[in-house]
Amino acid sequence: MKKPAYSVAVVGATGLVGAEIIAVLEQRQLPLANLQLYASLRSAGDEVRCGGVSARIELLDGARFEDTDIVFLAAGEQVSAEWVARASDAGGVVIDTSQLFAGDVDVPLVVPEVNAASLADYGQRNLVASPDPVAVAMSIVLKPLQATRPLKRIVASAFDPVSGAGRAGIDELQRQTVDLMNGRSVEPALFPHRIAFNLVPQVGALLEGGASHDEQQTMQALRRVLDLPELEISVTRVRAPLFYGAAIAVNVELLDPLTAAEARDLLRAAPGILLHDDMTTASYPTPMDAVGQDAICIGRVRADEAVNLLDLWIVFDNVRKGAATNAVQIAELLIRDYL
Amino acid sequence: MKKPAYSVAVVGATGLVGAEIIAVLEQRQLPLANLQLYASLRSAGDEVRCGGVSARIELLDGARFEDTDIVFLAAGEQVSAEWVARASDAGGVVIDTSQLFAGDVDVPLVVPEVNAASLADYGQRNLVASPDPVAVAMSIVLKPLQATRPLKRIVASAFDPVSGAGRAGIDELQRQTVDLMNGRSVEPALFPHRIAFNLVPQVGALLEGGASHDEQQTMQALRRVLDLPELEISVTRVRAPLFYGAAIAVNVELLDPLTAAEARDLLRAAPGILLHDDMTTASYPTPMDAVGQDAICIGRVRADEAVNLLDLWIVFDNVRKGAATNAVQIAELLIRDYL
Repeated sequence: MKKPAYSVAVVGATGLVGAEIIAVLEQRQLPLANLQLYASLRSAGDEVRCGGVSARIELLDGARFEDTDIVFLAAGEQVSAEWVARASDAGGVVIDTSQLFAGDVDVPLVVPEVNAASLADYGQRNLVASPDPVAVAMSIVLKPLQATRPLKRIVASAFDPVSGAGRAGIDELQRQTVDLMNGRSVEPALFPHRIAFNLVPQVGALLEGGASHDEQQTMQALRRVLDLPELEISVTRVRAPLFYGAAIAVNVELLDPLTAAEARDLLRAAPGILLHDDMTTASYPTPMDAVGQDAICIGRVRADEAVNLLDLWIVFDNVRKGAATNAVQIAELLIRDYL
Repeated sequence: MKKPAYSVAVVGATGLVGAEIIAVLEQRQLPLANLQLYASLRSAGDEVRCGGVSARIELLDGARFEDTDIVFLAAGEQVSAEWVARASDAGGVVIDTSQLFAGDVDVPLVVPEVNAASLADYGQRNLVASPDPVAVAMSIVLKPLQATRPLKRIVASAFDPVSGAGRAGIDELQRQTVDLMNGRSVEPALFPHRIAFNLVPQVGALLEGGASHDEQQTMQALRRVLDLPELEISVTRVRAPLFYGAAIAVNVELLDPLTAAEARDLLRAAPGILLHDDMTTASYPTPMDAVGQDAICIGRVRADEAVNLLDLWIVFDNVRKGAATNAVQIAELLIRDYL
């Protein structure tokens, strides 16, 4: 018996996340009946092959999304705001990778390894949101701990690569690096300060109270995905001079003691996690090791049992599991359970 | 009346910290009668001018430190271990910037803005130690907070530039960056993993229990300098692809509430701190802003009063205030109060 195939659209098909969604669709062999790819003027016309079907990149302006089962929106908040209603009204389920709906309780915010059950609400607006990449990674790591020991407080420093700001972010780090290595002066354009050989402790606009937009977003999304609305979280997000691959140093305070060995066992057994933890060597993951991987990689597990504290080092591919893979996994769940 | 002048020696005069000590001696106009500079074979013979005196760099092998008032040791733990007794036995006071004596209770570990009084014990071994750079910066920031609100718990992620590993660290980041930008492959040599466009969550050897040597050192030094032997501290140190200038994201839990405005007032009034805190603009310091400065720069002060938490972003010049300036300030205190 031939299994059913689905009609899928990707909006923002030439952006970092959109292009990665196409790659992940192919790698995970999502059964495609056809593929519609939409982008801005510049890249329209190019032909792309994916999972046995081929598609020409079309101008978004002409999109109607008729007879489409699943629409991935991967072109940022502005495009999502403009196109979400048209896409969901046409009948397909929309999976949005922008953070436009992260705070909307009518829109499930889903990390399949963590809160797959909340996908049941997708029909309220025919819309599902994939969370902020830092929240995706942290929720996958915290879920197995929370399952045995209640979480009391989380303190995290996240290191965001420039790819989190799209192709323009990549261009800016590349250009500034070349200019500095050639003794030329550098003016910041996209990021508020020089990023090459520097750190910029601001990801997203600064809000009243002092947190940045993206820090706020991480905290909100984490509380929603873990279903812990009162969880105490402090997150500082820092843009670092990396192209791909993100990192998070996390300190977890639990209500009950947990040894490092117990924590390692819980993490090793949890879905979506790859534990690097040969203590005899420098065997911890670095951001470059995470690039192209779907797993959230963890190393440097340290516990201070006397005070119920756990320190973890997390790396992950922000474009892939942080956004594209998570969105495709949501599609797989939709297909398995609902479509 | 002419003020007295001192005979000063610098061991490791051509290393990053040693060269910076010479620069700081000149800038702060420490009164020099003469200057003896010692280094390894490669750089011996060069002439250096500093504060009205000039000195030829000599081979350390021949050093006798006779009639020297102050000896700066700035050539790493191995050289300190070999030379500290000879230098202090010759009669001068030794100021060591390696961390060899950071755990030795007979050797005062001094940050002049924080625990100047403990310098009184310098005579026990004729030796004073300058702490680990991360502990220098954190102690200056935490001291004014501790003075009004007891500290309960500190969680910090420190971003160490490659200059923390000396000139070899600078060379490695430079070489790897050029190779990658030219499409060549890169093999790590000094650092355990590639550092260019990456993060390495290990500074110092990994110890049993999971902390690194330098993380342990930061925690120990901070407890000593703040005179809070029981203070709960979690520190993760991450090597980042920066040349100069270090950063620390710090989360402070206090026993009593403190508003962000109160915290800013305390920090603004404290010695050694420069508060960047115009909330209307992206006016926080980045590591490149700290280079060449003696102040510890602070921005992004955020408070969650409900749970007595404070988040801070700290940047500082690891070679300068982290090591060289702190050592010269110790010399100034010695001169003012004891010599």
